Amino acid sequence: MTATTAIYGETNPSPQDLGKMPIRRYGSVVEIRKEKEQYYRELHANGWNGVMERIKKSNIQNYSIFIHEIEGKKYLFSYFEYIGNDFDGDMAKIASDKETRRWWKETDPCQKPLTATPDGSNWSVMEPVFLLE
Amino acid sequence: MTATTAIYGETNPSPQDLGKMPIRRYGSVVEIRKEKEQYYRELHANGWNGVMERIKKSNIQNYSIFIHEIEGKKYLFSYFEYIGNDFDGDMAKIASDKETRRWWKETDPCQKPLTATPDGSNWSVMEPVFLLE
Repeated sequence: MTATTAIYGETNPSPQDLGKMPIRRYGSVVEIRKEKEQYYRELHANGWNGVMERIKKSNIQNYSIFIHEIEGKKYLFSYFEYIGNDFDGDMAKIASDKETRRWWKETDPCQKPLTATPDGSNWSVMEPVFLLE
Repeated sequence: MTATTAIYGETNPSPQDLGKMPIRRYGSVVEIRKEKEQYYRELHANGWNGVMERIKKSNIQNYSIFIHEIEGKKYLFSYFEYIGNDFDGDMAKIASDKETRRWWKETDPCQKPLTATPDGSNWSVMEPVFLLE
């Protein structure tokens, strides 16, 4: 194993500096179960209105999900931007939203977490190494 | 193998509709050689000025790279937005830029393409399945 250390600079702001920026970018990854891929695509082509509105009200914007196969397995990669001032509070509002909870009952079984995540979410948050605004 | 088909809708615009949008979002993935990870981090913490300027002049904005380990290997995931009207032309200007070519001599050996890509780039472009602006 090769040990690596995070390096910060002009084009990779430290977590502290990122936290001060008006837009904070999140990249995440999760495996998708191949037998559920088609259903996941159906759901996401026409996301439920209430779920979409709750995301926007929680100060999330510019939210993309991509899919790609790596070594025979399929993965989802998400990118979104958070522009509020209370990330945990805004996420809690999403997590307690009734329609979102119904939505997750559909989407959760499509996903297979890479590892157990601290907050119980299926998605693993990735580490940023570069940012050019 | 489970056959899947792309599904387009309100929250997953078709390639044709995406092409008409003022901002076009690209997600890509490549493996990073673990023995080169530290050097890649060093390079990207302070991207060379000329390379960064050439990217911006080619109508690319909001460019993030993230790193994450999947099943014992490390991968880089990039997200950027293209706001110009001639993607191929703008990319060709990057590819012919002298400083960028020197930069790629440093970054290319850090990466291991998932598969041979049409344009000879190390990065594999991922398929979008969701967009909430």
